[in-house]
Amino acid sequence: MLTRDDCRRLDREDPLATLRGEFELPDGILYLDGNSLGPLPRAARARALQVLEREWAQGLIRSWNEAGWFALPARLGDRLAPLLGANPGEVVVTDSTSVNLFKVLAAALRLRGDRKAIVSERDGFPTDLYITQGLAGFLGQGHELRLVDDADELPQALGEDAAVLLLNHVHYRTGAMHDMAAMTARAHACGALMVWDLAHSVGAVPVDLNGARADFAVGSTYKYLNAGPGAPAFLLVSARHQAAAVQPLSGWWGHAAPFAMRSGFQPAPGIARFLCGTQPILSLVLVECGLEVFERTDMAAVRAKSLALSDLFIQLVEARCAGRGLELVTPRAHARRGSQVSLRHEHGYPIMQALIARGVIGDYREPHILRFGFAPLYVRYVDVWDAVEQLRDILDSDAWRAPAFQARRAVT
Amino acid sequence: MLTRDDCRRLDREDPLATLRGEFELPDGILYLDGNSLGPLPRAARARALQVLEREWAQGLIRSWNEAGWFALPARLGDRLAPLLGANPGEVVVTDSTSVNLFKVLAAALRLRGDRKAIVSERDGFPTDLYITQGLAGFLGQGHELRLVDDADELPQALGEDAAVLLLNHVHYRTGAMHDMAAMTARAHACGALMVWDLAHSVGAVPVDLNGARADFAVGSTYKYLNAGPGAPAFLLVSARHQAAAVQPLSGWWGHAAPFAMRSGFQPAPGIARFLCGTQPILSLVLVECGLEVFERTDMAAVRAKSLALSDLFIQLVEARCAGRGLELVTPRAHARRGSQVSLRHEHGYPIMQALIARGVIGDYREPHILRFGFAPLYVRYVDVWDAVEQLRDILDSDAWRAPAFQARRAVT
Repeated sequence: MLTRDDCRRLDREDPLATLRGEFELPDGILYLDGNSLGPLPRAARARALQVLEREWAQGLIRSWNEAGWFALPARLGDRLAPLLGANPGEVVVTDSTSVNLFKVLAAALRLRGDRKAIVSERDGFPTDLYITQGLAGFLGQGHELRLVDDADELPQALGEDAAVLLLNHVHYRTGAMHDMAAMTARAHACGALMVWDLAHSVGAVPVDLNGARADFAVGSTYKYLNAGPGAPAFLLVSARHQAAAVQPLSGWWGHAAPFAMRSGFQPAPGIARFLCGTQPILSLVLVECGLEVFERTDMAAVRAKSLALSDLFIQLVEARCAGRGLELVTPRAHARRGSQVSLRHEHGYPIMQALIARGVIGDYREPHILRFGFAPLYVRYVDVWDAVEQLRDILDSDAWRAPAFQARRAVT
Repeated sequence: MLTRDDCRRLDREDPLATLRGEFELPDGILYLDGNSLGPLPRAARARALQVLEREWAQGLIRSWNEAGWFALPARLGDRLAPLLGANPGEVVVTDSTSVNLFKVLAAALRLRGDRKAIVSERDGFPTDLYITQGLAGFLGQGHELRLVDDADELPQALGEDAAVLLLNHVHYRTGAMHDMAAMTARAHACGALMVWDLAHSVGAVPVDLNGARADFAVGSTYKYLNAGPGAPAFLLVSARHQAAAVQPLSGWWGHAAPFAMRSGFQPAPGIARFLCGTQPILSLVLVECGLEVFERTDMAAVRAKSLALSDLFIQLVEARCAGRGLELVTPRAHARRGSQVSLRHEHGYPIMQALIARGVIGDYREPHILRFGFAPLYVRYVDVWDAVEQLRDILDSDAWRAPAFQARRAVT
């Protein structure tokens, strides 16, 4: 049986071990929630001060040119593209994931003309479904949100009226991962366009959007990409759609001549037509500090460690917390697993609060799900060991029954 | 005739003079472009470091609750409300002005059912018209963007089919200001809803949206409110519309139960239904540093100094730059003037570049317009004197003819 010393040995042998030093992590905390908010890259403080003191305070309005603010969404998109299996000119960093999803869904629906069905999973990321509902309801053109209860039902759901298949690459709650190439091919087989939400996969698993011939994608930068709380999100439009794809949030930044101040909108020729209004520069700039860390490794190495960490967690939970009411939700098969492991327990909420009170930070999702994210850039094997030991102790001691752990917080 | 010493005396007597110390302004620069990007409030550096080091690095995901991130859009909206003549619960700070305009226009069109005309000015802020075009085109329900060439034509344009009147309170190029109460009453008289874009007025002139019975408003925080480059914008929905107004960008933050993870969207009961996706916390937090400065004065004092500065500028330009091809574009009447003065000159672009090269930062807008913004919190009377002297010398010396000043920059 594995011991804590074995975990320490795995850390010593870990080729990614030095990257942990690129992040500021609080003392006494085991952080297993990088799938929700990544930690601060050490480079971010200096970069933020540079924006505040040099670019904003000293440069003032001149920094739109001289500090390259205007070029940021496309420049960051190009730098992110390799993590998506995309080419330069196919990605921008801008707005929120929800706003970006609205844009790409709207563009996809228009490209597919009279097809009226948007196919997705009932259990998908709720805000993606909310955005889809908002868009369809607003269009008032008879679009239908066709939700399947299981991916096995997709073949029937993808009929000749299907305009779009919208899927989460990795499921936010279960950690289950779709086969990107297979699902994209399925959408295309019926003539639908494929929209991927990569929020819970980018930076944690290899993504090859162009290899899969995906049409559109969106995702967030503040989870595994460590860009900072609420940092602007990204969107991808495949190069083959850019000339024809138009989206309704047609603000100045997406104009072909944004400073000509003409009264008629003319979309920019490339991916820039998916930009809209002025972006929050300070939050946007820090996206780069997160991306820089990824350029010191590669996604194959990240994936290998991610699977090793989550395998270890599953193994330890099953060996050391057996018979304590925990049920594995995440698929065991590597090909079906993202970079998080979810466990179901009847008292999941107070158990997670008790863990957090002991400095083991995962999170809770309705219903009854404890989520543990394994971000390979900074999570150690010994962290996995220690987290499982804390979990076991909390279950054995009934520590989670304390009244303080029952009350729901505003943000869960 | 006024002298430079007179200007220095005005500065000594200025009741707002001490507020200049709340901002970091670069040495050797006369900054007359706060109508485009306000300067750094001194408090912003410490606040940014607090977010980076304490809230993000140490607090990590817990800061959504413990640092109040989730409450920020509404809390900042409440703090901004007095500058808008609005009540708590009517304003949120979120997204970009363009995205917010899309939301409120969409909500207004739905409230006005079968009315199909969106009335605005052909010469209005271009991105507002782009967004309106994008929305109308996307709806495909026969909405018409009815543009008038002059405000005098509004009575004819506002027929029984008018759903919305969309106006810029202060015009971005000319600095001309609309009578908010009169224009709102005109919209209401025909049954239309009134949408104000306050980007070029909030923080520079008193705004009384509720006094005027305005229905919706949007605006930016990074101009006269000094929130930082591209900081999230604001929107107002009058309390009397909030129960019925819905908007299509229905993301998780606008849900009645954002953490229940239900698959159906249910809009939040109040202004929160106009939120959408996750916000860029670092840029959002700094909005507060800008607002704090306004709480040390009042808009009557700000307005008095604004008019004194722009009166002085007009007087000095006419006295000291007469016969040099400059033409006043901004209205002389106080009731019709915002807080900027625009001058037309055949060679406006290179003249502005020559001014900037000498450290007098205004900006240029097509066609042929030199813009000078007078932000009363930090612009001095002596700055006005010195700017006019530089302008005169550039015109007299033909300094603007240097080749370096002819080439257009990426961002103008």
